[in-house]
Amino acid sequence: LIPRFVAYFSPVPSMCVCVQSCHATKPGMLNVHLVPHTHDDVGWLKTVDQYYYGDRNDIQHAGVQYILDSVVDQLLKNQDRRFIYVEMAFFYRWWKSQSSSVQQTVKQLVNEGRLEFVNGGWCMSDEAATHYSAVIDQMTIGLRFLNETFGAFGRPRVTWHIDPFGHAREHASMFAQMGFDGFFFGRLDYQDRARRMRNKEQELLWRASDSLTPPMADLFTGILPNGYNPPEGFCWDQLCSDPPIRDDPDLEDYNVDDVVGCFLVIANSQSTVYKTNHIIMTMGSDFQYENANLWYKNLDKLIHYVNARQANGNKVNVLYSTPSCYLQELHRANLTWPLKTDDFFPYADDAHDFWTGYFTSRPALKRYERISNSNLQTCNQLEVFGEKAMAVAQHHDAVSGTEKQHVANDYARKLANGWQHCRVLVSNSLAALSGLSAERIYCENLNVSVCPLTESSKKFSVNVYNPLARPVTWPVRLPVNGTAYSVSDASGKAVDCQVSMCASSFAVNELVFQVQAPPLGYTTYTVALIQDGPPPAPAQQRAPPVIQNKFLQVTFDPETGLISSLNNQETKQIIKLTQNFYWLVYNASAGNNVESRQPSGAYIFRPNSSTPFIISRTAKTEIIKTSVVQEVRQWFAPWVSQVVRLYADSRALELEWTVGPVPIDDSLGKEVITRLDTSIKTSEYFYTDSNGREVLQRKKDFWPTWNLKQSEPIAGNYYPINSRAYIKDDVDQLTVVTDRSQGGGSIQNGSLEIMLHHRLLHYDFRGVGEPLNEISGIFPDGLVVRGRLLLTLDPLPTAADMHRPLAEGMVLQPLLTFTAGDLKPNTQLEFSGLLAALPPAVHLLTLSQWDEDSVLLRLEHQYQSSESKVSSQAVTVNLQKLFSTLEVLGVAELNLSANQWKDEMKRFDWTPEKGTGHQCCVS
Amino acid sequence: LIPRFVAYFSPVPSMCVCVQSCHATKPGMLNVHLVPHTHDDVGWLKTVDQYYYGDRNDIQHAGVQYILDSVVDQLLKNQDRRFIYVEMAFFYRWWKSQSSSVQQTVKQLVNEGRLEFVNGGWCMSDEAATHYSAVIDQMTIGLRFLNETFGAFGRPRVTWHIDPFGHAREHASMFAQMGFDGFFFGRLDYQDRARRMRNKEQELLWRASDSLTPPMADLFTGILPNGYNPPEGFCWDQLCSDPPIRDDPDLEDYNVDDVVGCFLVIANSQSTVYKTNHIIMTMGSDFQYENANLWYKNLDKLIHYVNARQANGNKVNVLYSTPSCYLQELHRANLTWPLKTDDFFPYADDAHDFWTGYFTSRPALKRYERISNSNLQTCNQLEVFGEKAMAVAQHHDAVSGTEKQHVANDYARKLANGWQHCRVLVSNSLAALSGLSAERIYCENLNVSVCPLTESSKKFSVNVYNPLARPVTWPVRLPVNGTAYSVSDASGKAVDCQVSMCASSFAVNELVFQVQAPPLGYTTYTVALIQDGPPPAPAQQRAPPVIQNKFLQVTFDPETGLISSLNNQETKQIIKLTQNFYWLVYNASAGNNVESRQPSGAYIFRPNSSTPFIISRTAKTEIIKTSVVQEVRQWFAPWVSQVVRLYADSRALELEWTVGPVPIDDSLGKEVITRLDTSIKTSEYFYTDSNGREVLQRKKDFWPTWNLKQSEPIAGNYYPINSRAYIKDDVDQLTVVTDRSQGGGSIQNGSLEIMLHHRLLHYDFRGVGEPLNEISGIFPDGLVVRGRLLLTLDPLPTAADMHRPLAEGMVLQPLLTFTAGDLKPNTQLEFSGLLAALPPAVHLLTLSQWDEDSVLLRLEHQYQSSESKVSSQAVTVNLQKLFSTLEVLGVAELNLSANQWKDEMKRFDWTPEKGTGHQCCVS
Repeated sequence: LIPRFVAYFSPVPSMCVCVQSCHATKPGMLNVHLVPHTHDDVGWLKTVDQYYYGDRNDIQHAGVQYILDSVVDQLLKNQDRRFIYVEMAFFYRWWKSQSSSVQQTVKQLVNEGRLEFVNGGWCMSDEAATHYSAVIDQMTIGLRFLNETFGAFGRPRVTWHIDPFGHAREHASMFAQMGFDGFFFGRLDYQDRARRMRNKEQELLWRASDSLTPPMADLFTGILPNGYNPPEGFCWDQLCSDPPIRDDPDLEDYNVDDVVGCFLVIANSQSTVYKTNHIIMTMGSDFQYENANLWYKNLDKLIHYVNARQANGNKVNVLYSTPSCYLQELHRANLTWPLKTDDFFPYADDAHDFWTGYFTSRPALKRYERISNSNLQTCNQLEVFGEKAMAVAQHHDAVSGTEKQHVANDYARKLANGWQHCRVLVSNSLAALSGLSAERIYCENLNVSVCPLTESSKKFSVNVYNPLARPVTWPVRLPVNGTAYSVSDASGKAVDCQVSMCASSFAVNELVFQVQAPPLGYTTYTVALIQDGPPPAPAQQRAPPVIQNKFLQVTFDPETGLISSLNNQETKQIIKLTQNFYWLVYNASAGNNVESRQPSGAYIFRPNSSTPFIISRTAKTEIIKTSVVQEVRQWFAPWVSQVVRLYADSRALELEWTVGPVPIDDSLGKEVITRLDTSIKTSEYFYTDSNGREVLQRKKDFWPTWNLKQSEPIAGNYYPINSRAYIKDDVDQLTVVTDRSQGGGSIQNGSLEIMLHHRLLHYDFRGVGEPLNEISGIFPDGLVVRGRLLLTLDPLPTAADMHRPLAEGMVLQPLLTFTAGDLKPNTQLEFSGLLAALPPAVHLLTLSQWDEDSVLLRLEHQYQSSESKVSSQAVTVNLQKLFSTLEVLGVAELNLSANQWKDEMKRFDWTPEKGTGHQCCVS
Repeated sequence: LIPRFVAYFSPVPSMCVCVQSCHATKPGMLNVHLVPHTHDDVGWLKTVDQYYYGDRNDIQHAGVQYILDSVVDQLLKNQDRRFIYVEMAFFYRWWKSQSSSVQQTVKQLVNEGRLEFVNGGWCMSDEAATHYSAVIDQMTIGLRFLNETFGAFGRPRVTWHIDPFGHAREHASMFAQMGFDGFFFGRLDYQDRARRMRNKEQELLWRASDSLTPPMADLFTGILPNGYNPPEGFCWDQLCSDPPIRDDPDLEDYNVDDVVGCFLVIANSQSTVYKTNHIIMTMGSDFQYENANLWYKNLDKLIHYVNARQANGNKVNVLYSTPSCYLQELHRANLTWPLKTDDFFPYADDAHDFWTGYFTSRPALKRYERISNSNLQTCNQLEVFGEKAMAVAQHHDAVSGTEKQHVANDYARKLANGWQHCRVLVSNSLAALSGLSAERIYCENLNVSVCPLTESSKKFSVNVYNPLARPVTWPVRLPVNGTAYSVSDASGKAVDCQVSMCASSFAVNELVFQVQAPPLGYTTYTVALIQDGPPPAPAQQRAPPVIQNKFLQVTFDPETGLISSLNNQETKQIIKLTQNFYWLVYNASAGNNVESRQPSGAYIFRPNSSTPFIISRTAKTEIIKTSVVQEVRQWFAPWVSQVVRLYADSRALELEWTVGPVPIDDSLGKEVITRLDTSIKTSEYFYTDSNGREVLQRKKDFWPTWNLKQSEPIAGNYYPINSRAYIKDDVDQLTVVTDRSQGGGSIQNGSLEIMLHHRLLHYDFRGVGEPLNEISGIFPDGLVVRGRLLLTLDPLPTAADMHRPLAEGMVLQPLLTFTAGDLKPNTQLEFSGLLAALPPAVHLLTLSQWDEDSVLLRLEHQYQSSESKVSSQAVTVNLQKLFSTLEVLGVAELNLSANQWKDEMKRFDWTPEKGTGHQCCVS
């Protein structure tokens, strides 16, 4: 199931099938496809704009403006030459600064297949830490730019993820649904690669969903021979030092025979680990081709001198090529290919080099990215609704037409400064919808209880916008200085609210109440101070150590202060549950460095023991119970605390953890985890999601497709958790929903651990050149990170009915905006863009303005094929009766990335080998 | 005097005055001339061909082929852009690999003044260690290529010595005589620069000869503002990290206002230290412009944004320019300029950073270069004579016509492998001239007494070719194994010869005899073994400690074994003379590093004491006297020895020193000097030559043009000695003629010291990145160097009559070739290309084949204006009666570099400031 609907309300230029301009190959020979390329990280050691301009070359030499200048010049010098380009974040910046004559020239190069776009998204997305909704958005932005600029010739046929550190099945599924014919990447587990080389299985068919009918999510996948680098000795970029081809016999060191001989050895060797008489060589690397002449001048010579040997009977034919030309030859070979249904996590490039640390690296940024995505969706939705409102209320003072142009057109700024600009748009749209032009305040530090307006105002209102297509209930927690407040909803009805002493140290008190917001819309609550004065006496209750509501009961061990059990009072399920915090360490001086000197770092996770250090066996606790919320506050160490929180109407238990500054006085970097040890009887299996969407089964020390030799018992069993992980036995399923991407594993049966934060004192030799030791202006002693885990305990058949909406709400959370003082009369206090909530199975993934007359709508079935008896069923939505303020004049279905009509999407068909493929997923 | 005659026997294409295509400047504004340039060392950290191809970029990133590719591309993109190119060694390699269409394009760029050549020699010659004859040759090769390729538009107007470490007056003189209008350089003494900046004397008129009538050797000289680098913050090459101009207001870090503001500050500041409203900025550096787009894209923007300020009243005008366009504006300014008559040695870039070590660095290479030049002149001469002979004896088996083409056409190989190829030509020419086709053996290791042929043959002949235009007497020393030989000259007459035990450890015995060779010709000696067997008993005489001939007497101190006096028996002059060996050291741990941490290195000489360490107060000695030669062999240490040698018919005393391996067991690098302490009453003056030609007066701790503050009492008083140095008082002049370029000084009155060798353990921070610690395959413990000093003691009025021919003979020495066995009957045993010897004042500098029908002849008056009463007088030479085998059909006079007719050579006229200029030279 899980088909995605893409509705599109106005026609776009028809897209035809691209004409390839591939060089002819020679059937009886080994054809070597040289693919000139550059890998341009959209921010890594430098910012995007620094990379674009070539600023701060003292940090890393890289200037993308010059790369594109140079490649275009060099392509014009010899029509045989080819180049591929990937990242639209850079290409767009470059394109808009070119003269129309250069633009015309580039269009010609694209039309002739000499410049080919691959991937075509705004960037080459990470596959472990990204959420599918953000990936679809960024691909759409880039592909739309290509479509509008170059038409059908600009449409990438191939996706190209040469650098990401492991590959997610959901990415492959998305790429298939976006119409890509093939997928190439460079990194996979070193054992897996060795096996695939032996078996000639480096090219395969990836069946990337167990919900979609094949070949909907089938994607041809090729593993590149040298990561994404050229073969050794053949790097001719200015960043390399390999000897150039010296072909002037009058000068010293004539080396043509050496170079050709060496190349033939490499080519023939490479051909033994691939299936066809075509092989590909990536001739480029990070930020290469800034001076493309170096590469092309030598590649021209290489091709000339190698092919000249054909006159002497040599059977190697070298040609400039592109991934799509190479793919076309593989397709023409008409072979069968091994089928793969699992994914490529975790990635290890050597026995002690598991790239599983980055699943958690920079946890604050990972949360910020997730919140930003939520806000961006809100922004997109409000642009649609606000547009409509503004159309009928154009006179309104607050509505400035200039902003729209800005946001709609400037993709660069949208990415970099998205939220700052969205704020203006959101304010304008809300003003238009509500008729309220008063200043709208955004309190972005509510997670640490900072909001000057609520702390100082005697009266204010809270606008709660809900980007979900169904109503939401949401706890609002506001820092205040008073001791008693009245809160009323849009209808003027009083709402139960409580003030308690703030758990955080920043504010005095905290006002808590539950709000309810309509689908794709907002409602308004007003808050008034009743009693000022000194803070109330702490409403703590030290016993009994239990919190509960009508759904859940959580008990605590009175000795340790730790959670001891979780009880679903509706289903009568009860499990033993102990939760605590630990740290793991890579200690460079320990004996482990006999095997390898690899330390933990931003990428690599390498603890030197399988037994984590416990931070504290006991927690100091306080219990606070009000009618709105019950919570146990736990202190484990000066740098680790947690609030175990149960709202009156919630079916999920919230663990709000605060970790940091991680101490390093002992000169040890630390990886901080929380571990849930339960009575659930697992047998080495646990489950994690892929990019926030389908869930994959994981088994300890096991890969479905090959015989794993495990060398890292902890790091080698970590997987990315984008939105949820769970453990289960025949009766109980404990699901943890996360608020950001994290890494985690199930090292012992019944146990689930998640890495929350790490602070590392060594550099892990993967290019960044510095240890991951985050400090900042407000955290000079080390970053403090706060986050939430939501726990649900359910029977297996209905567990998905719990965690799907829970995670949906975590990803798209309400946006609160504040207005001081009394509201103007006639303010529109409530609005919903939908006539009715969508069915539970249907997630409104995208609603955004496409152009003046049309919007892009993505509706998604959010349940995996068999995870819920009820919810996994197919559903029907009537678009005509969907929106409250939009009239649907027409609908056209597009591919997932909205750059092709669905019915024009024709992909290569590939035949899987019989007997391959493994049923490894959710059963 | 010292005019040079250049005779040229066939017409070349007429050269017109170049049309400049300079951008217009603005009279009321400060005009900033931006000069894009690259500085491409013709070998430094990499070989020439490695630099050309961009090979070994791991050592240094540099690839000249790509620089020229890129610059041409970028010049075509905007016709305002300009570029200058210097080194023909690279340009020629590049040019010959270009298609004719690229060549046509480049010609167009040259014709339009968009690509301008400056200097135009094969390389940018060093000024301290080069001999004028080699400099003239290398300039001629490059300028000829330009003339033949680009005609008049390719002729450089300006010479450009931006990198050499100090500037020789003779270079300026040569450049003036080559027709250059101006000279620009980057390095001069830091105190001198400071003074010149204060006084606006960074642009001046250099009167570079006291023999030539002004303005024959006048050269306008400009000191560049930043060495040859761009102003700080404005380096936009790929090798730099300055921020690019970020002018897209949509992206982060828009910096146009900052960049323009900073540039205006720099420009206005620079204008305060120059005289006119024009200033120059060198926009480039070492091996820059490999990706010229980076530079030009930002320079285009800089010019655009700075000049845009003119609309707001700003008075700075920036333009692309070239040195000749800048020079033209200075000339138009019609000002007077300070006059300078001394030179720019030594060069110090800080108080303890005197670049006087490189005068001696790599002494073996310096000698090899000098010998190679001598051989090349022989080769050139023999090509002329051999051509002629071959024309009448074409049938001769041994004459292969292919070689000539090779040598004549392939400048690259000529430079790199000159001698290897010359050998073939010399053999062929000598075979043609003599009618002897037997194999000709070259013994290049005679200086260490190695020659397998002479050591093993019972009979052999020696051909002695003399490249001088007058007869020469020359001692031949051959390693042999026999104890008695007969030697006869070309007429069959017996020649006095002696066998003695070899001073060197390599061979057993040494056969010594004097040969006499005709001008520009050869003679032949035959040698036959008389007595084989055990080596003769050492013919040593331990007393009296005196050696003498009819001209000189040398006494030795019987206690120390050192020379004690020198007596000219003809002139009855006698001086006390003590000669010994010392070393100086830079000891990093000594107290001196309080002032500066600068150590000695390949460039910098910085001893940490003014008192050198004596190697040994006494020498172990042996005396050997024969009828041919008398010599005292001195051993000072296992690594220092010397032969004091007086040939029977020589007016000069020879000191053959052997130094090495310099010991470093004490972890101290050492600078080894020999010092001559005499009774001559000097008063802080001594004299050194400039590039082997005119002699300049030097005074201790004194610069003629400014008030020197001396901070390095030894290193700051060292000067380059290319061919000779002398000290004198009213009566005696002691002249030392060297066999290579060395550094030396006169630190105490009556004393003259010469640095012979150094071995250093520290790197001196000037780019090479390694200490100067020469070892080699045959010298694994450190290089051993052998060389000769010739000493003459003369009355002042005739001293030049001694040292001029002595140095002439040292520079152009006979070439010996050997033939085993009996000579074929009818072998032509003697040949002279001249009908008669030239007058003593006239040196035949060049005789080489120009093209099929013409030869290039340079005749030079080799005496300075007033150094010899007799020889400094003007002389006349009748070209028609000069050559024995060449018929002179016509003569045309050219400039010194042979790229312009003498009568078409028109240079800018410049007016010196009144009252400037110093009479500092030989008086």
